[in-house]
Amino acid sequence: MKTYSVKELLSEGKTQQDVVVKGWVRTFRSNRFIALNDGSTINNIQCVIDFENTDEEVLKKITTSAAIEVKGTLVASQGSGQAVEIQAQTITILGASNPEEYPIQPKKHSLEFLRANAHLRVRTNTFSAVMRVRSALSFAVHKFFQEDGFYYVNTPIITGSDAEGAGEMFRVSALDAKNPPLTEEGNIDYAEDFFGKETNLTVSGQLEAETYAMGLGKVYTFGPTFRAENSNTTRHLAEFWMIEPEVAFMDLDGNMDLAERFIKSVLGYVKEHCADDLAFLEQRLLNEEKTKPQNERSPMPLREKIDFILDNNFKRVSYTEAIEILRNSKPNKKKKFDYIIEDWGADLQSEHERYLVEKHFECPVILFDYPAKIKAFYMRLNDDGKTVRAMDILFPGIGEIVGGAQREERYEVLVDKMKTMGIDEEELYWYLDLRKFGTAVHSGFGLGFERLVLFATGMTNIRDVIPFPRTPKNAEF
Amino acid sequence: MKTYSVKELLSEGKTQQDVVVKGWVRTFRSNRFIALNDGSTINNIQCVIDFENTDEEVLKKITTSAAIEVKGTLVASQGSGQAVEIQAQTITILGASNPEEYPIQPKKHSLEFLRANAHLRVRTNTFSAVMRVRSALSFAVHKFFQEDGFYYVNTPIITGSDAEGAGEMFRVSALDAKNPPLTEEGNIDYAEDFFGKETNLTVSGQLEAETYAMGLGKVYTFGPTFRAENSNTTRHLAEFWMIEPEVAFMDLDGNMDLAERFIKSVLGYVKEHCADDLAFLEQRLLNEEKTKPQNERSPMPLREKIDFILDNNFKRVSYTEAIEILRNSKPNKKKKFDYIIEDWGADLQSEHERYLVEKHFECPVILFDYPAKIKAFYMRLNDDGKTVRAMDILFPGIGEIVGGAQREERYEVLVDKMKTMGIDEEELYWYLDLRKFGTAVHSGFGLGFERLVLFATGMTNIRDVIPFPRTPKNAEF
Repeated sequence: MKTYSVKELLSEGKTQQDVVVKGWVRTFRSNRFIALNDGSTINNIQCVIDFENTDEEVLKKITTSAAIEVKGTLVASQGSGQAVEIQAQTITILGASNPEEYPIQPKKHSLEFLRANAHLRVRTNTFSAVMRVRSALSFAVHKFFQEDGFYYVNTPIITGSDAEGAGEMFRVSALDAKNPPLTEEGNIDYAEDFFGKETNLTVSGQLEAETYAMGLGKVYTFGPTFRAENSNTTRHLAEFWMIEPEVAFMDLDGNMDLAERFIKSVLGYVKEHCADDLAFLEQRLLNEEKTKPQNERSPMPLREKIDFILDNNFKRVSYTEAIEILRNSKPNKKKKFDYIIEDWGADLQSEHERYLVEKHFECPVILFDYPAKIKAFYMRLNDDGKTVRAMDILFPGIGEIVGGAQREERYEVLVDKMKTMGIDEEELYWYLDLRKFGTAVHSGFGLGFERLVLFATGMTNIRDVIPFPRTPKNAEF
Repeated sequence: MKTYSVKELLSEGKTQQDVVVKGWVRTFRSNRFIALNDGSTINNIQCVIDFENTDEEVLKKITTSAAIEVKGTLVASQGSGQAVEIQAQTITILGASNPEEYPIQPKKHSLEFLRANAHLRVRTNTFSAVMRVRSALSFAVHKFFQEDGFYYVNTPIITGSDAEGAGEMFRVSALDAKNPPLTEEGNIDYAEDFFGKETNLTVSGQLEAETYAMGLGKVYTFGPTFRAENSNTTRHLAEFWMIEPEVAFMDLDGNMDLAERFIKSVLGYVKEHCADDLAFLEQRLLNEEKTKPQNERSPMPLREKIDFILDNNFKRVSYTEAIEILRNSKPNKKKKFDYIIEDWGADLQSEHERYLVEKHFECPVILFDYPAKIKAFYMRLNDDGKTVRAMDILFPGIGEIVGGAQREERYEVLVDKMKTMGIDEEELYWYLDLRKFGTAVHSGFGLGFERLVLFATGMTNIRDVIPFPRTPKNAEF
């Protein structure tokens, strides 16, 4: 007898054949119907047991989360709800699960409770669906770039450079924390540390990815990045995965084209490959939001929101134009925004971004040409001397999902900018070298992967879309 | 006029059409022939310029590593060595490269010199080939698992658990290193640290991956892992990427099948998709080894070595059997081994592993059922009480490339083992929970990705197969 996954049985199983399946009991009702799941799909296979002829010791152990093996015949199901089911001949208990002790009861638990049981929450419908979608999205990312001629680059996680200034960093050290070696001046002597210098966890692979783009042409990173910021919000993690493509000879317009194509490709992949999980997650969100007041609910059901991205052209709007729109908008005039937009140069908040996307343009929006003062040192200065070739992509519900830029490729301009902004030139000599030896226009963007998973799954807390979230005061497991 | 990559022009370019291409000059000879490369392929496109009608200022700037744009007509090449070339009409210098200053001269540099210029070495043939192969291998890994029904899991990089004991760890902290808060007893008060406890960089995602396998069924990790070991060898990195599949309901035999299928799949992918790069790397290795004495050269050319893996069944041999073979082998009897094999229980060295693969069996070898004493706590104890269901896969040239095991799924046996080996049960309560609630046979393995890249590229120093290597006293860039 051949062993099948639940997914195989449900999608391509031939009836009247004998099959073996192994999985975990989700529910057991009427001493007769086992809903069995093995993680391969959101759907369970119903196993119908012959109550009279099953050992009582076995029956007692068919409890939620018990691991069992079922041998039987796949047949067309009599009941509604499933096309096929298994008429079980033999049930073997592989691993029991004491229902008095098992933390996850067959009832609705709060997401917060499940977070504290992150090692078991993947056994629930919600988290297994989220994590399958996450996995599919990951693959869609690689597939898109590889088929488009990009090369994957693993930029370093431990970095000796803290010059980028994108955020607070975690220090990495192998020194004795209590009695570290000191220099004559009484400072920590990092020359004695493992790497011979002070090292941190990376906040971005962009600068290193640029060095590779200037050799391989089109590259992308997809790896963990870190922020030691004490942000206890539903949108921030201390450890998260980032995707950063970087392309030589590409300007900002090309960058916008690439980002739009990329996002549509990966969401299209998930729509095609995770239909059952998305349907489940959509219903979950609808149920969750029933208890919320109308104005706090999502503007659209999950799959409609994904189609909203797939079916619309991303509207490209300059920052200057956006400021005009916002300044003249009703919520600004009526002081409904928390932050009132008064002058050009203001940094946009999530409320402004969402207004542009959800109310004004009613489509995804790419803002570009931001004030130089509110953007990073490496972004290319426009001829006006006050804006840079930066872009942000804004999505409904979450605001900014992508941040990117054409990079400053002119050596002198970059050095000037670094001086002004207090960035150490010596430390970044290698970044400057790219502008000395065969420089060229180049661009790229960054996308926080968990933001994308949030969007695609309809989950609302970023802690629920990564297996083991790291946040302030939390590094369990 | 449309812009093409060099790869597109060489593989599918139609002659007699006008084209634009951008890239970096590799060589410029006879004031007439530019070899242009854009990283898309190991091959250059030859651009033939009309010397008489090209501005002298432009000519002067056509130097190694200058970024240029060439407009011209794609024609069948007159010369040997390439099928097509570009008759250039216009050359535009995008970014000059002063040949007096550019560190990488058009001559052979030592790999060590190039390592110090890791931001530029990807512009050489060798490193661009290695990094393209690395990228293709990465994708092959994802493709294999995704098509086989596995889900990708991102296990945590920062971990509060140091229980696995797989090696020395790096500490991650946001405390003031010089004046850390102390407890009343005078120890570092990690309760004040970012995560509220002492945290380290992960040495393996296996234990966390197991929690996911026990929910999703088949999972794999592919992420960075770390060792703070002062190993200054050609085979060790402080930061490296690891692949760790983990499968519920799979025993050690299934694990061997999976590992063999996996390795053949990814090497087959590279053979198919990186033919030009592999041909180049094979020749590079032959050239390098010309200066070495015969007995230090590779047993086979690069592509033959890859075929050796693809074409052979992996021979499965118990540890006990291997010890017998080694004990009776010529090099053991003649004391040619550095470590003479005397008794059952001895740990195998690379010399023994290579003897088994290269001399005795002449095929890849999977050793299994190792002595419990030399293996990790989580490996499943056999009924003999002294061996565990561990396996190592041995390759020619490099020895061990995969280490895996069936995991101990029995709660009591695991607890006993942890007690004996001094592993903290409380800290790993979540790992023990897997054995309490629906436990099942499960197995997995780990493969250091850079070892695989070494094997596939024929490079001999692990620092040369990762973009920015981290090793003792080195965390540049």
